[in-house]
Amino acid sequence: MIVTRRLRLETQGDGQIIDLTDTVVGETARSGMRHGLATVFVTGTTAGVAVMEHEPGLVLDWAAAMERLVPRAMAYEHNERNNDDNGHSHTRAMLLGPSLTVPVEGGALTLGRWQRIVLVDYDSRPRAREVVLQCMGE
Amino acid sequence: MIVTRRLRLETQGDGQIIDLTDTVVGETARSGMRHGLATVFVTGTTAGVAVMEHEPGLVLDWAAAMERLVPRAMAYEHNERNNDDNGHSHTRAMLLGPSLTVPVEGGALTLGRWQRIVLVDYDSRPRAREVVLQCMGE
Amino acid sequence: MIVTRRLRLETQGDGQIIDLTDTVVGETARSGMRHGLATVFVTGTTAGVAVMEHEPGLVLDWAAAMERLVPRAMAYEHNERNNDDNGHSHTRAMLLGPSLTVPVEGGALTLGRWQRIVLVDYDSRPRAREVVLQCMGE
Repeated sequence: MIVTRRLRLETQGDGQIIDLTDTVVGETARSGMRHGLATVFVTGTTAGVAVMEHEPGLVLDWAAAMERLVPRAMAYEHNERNNDDNGHSHTRAMLLGPSLTVPVEGGALTLGRWQRIVLVDYDSRPRAREVVLQCMGE
Repeated sequence: MIVTRRLRLETQGDGQIIDLTDTVVGETARSGMRHGLATVFVTGTTAGVAVMEHEPGLVLDWAAAMERLVPRAMAYEHNERNNDDNGHSHTRAMLLGPSLTVPVEGGALTLGRWQRIVLVDYDSRPRAREVVLQCMGE
Repeated sequence: MIVTRRLRLETQGDGQIIDLTDTVVGETARSGMRHGLATVFVTGTTAGVAVMEHEPGLVLDWAAAMERLVPRAMAYEHNERNNDDNGHSHTRAMLLGPSLTVPVEGGALTLGRWQRIVLVDYDSRPRAREVVLQCMGE
């Protein structure tokens, strides 16, 4: 069985972290899949999908790490050439990646106790995001 | 249905970004798969697979970010111990990762408007690369 | 066919790299799967799964890169707010990611000559880790 759904979310950007776990768990249950793979894929080039302990301290630590590794205020050719302001957003999203696959066993995602599936939106403005959730299995 | 194909590419290395999207879209159509997963996997340890807006400014921005995070000119134990020159290539490729999974729905990859699937080759010399493309679904 | 197994490992943390390739290859063979996907997923938030040439020089180079990008000795809000010491571990693991998918063809993982599947444990203390291995295909 293969069930594909689209989630639509209004995001604020600027590194906002949105916890998708309950939605992914709920949609997986609703699909009736017992064993297989759950794939989460964001369709934008300035957002990524990751797994983390979704705890306020780590949210700040991750934001600080990204600002250190890919600063917002640097010069970006993307901004220069396209009269844009989100070169850092694209670069951060490419580092994180758009796709995550999680095994499902006995109807449950095999997430550990503290693992949460998150969407991280790096764009410089609010966006309407689309996340694809696919359950493939039996 | 499961269809696995090998793509062979001659690459230049040094961070070259090669757009695989048209090939992946074409092979997925050729497989006849309507719903499922397309997996792209590069078989080398000095190249990675990613998703980006494939725009000349961002190509330069990504190169600058990688040079800043994992400089070519640093001392690498890999180079020292193996009389080699691509320690930065291995490190960059490990950061990017070799694998990407994209849901397919109604015969089409669920890529967003600007998302392109790219191979990034970090090696210090031209290479003959092999990319595995697998379509699994129905 | 879908076969899901749990591997249990005692790890030392502090960036320890554990080669899972032989286990993944062995379990894939044992599953009897000829074609499909092998997914490797670690259930902790301070460890990641990656692919690398598992060579002593690169092990040191990767450790140096991570210490440079996400230093252990920085101030982390996670540590401050939770009286903990592994803020760097969470941040490094999030950068690496918990999940890897590898196509399988003719009963064999499509890994290249030098590619090894590794678990990288960034926690600040020894841990009992659980890795999920799922074979889905035919």
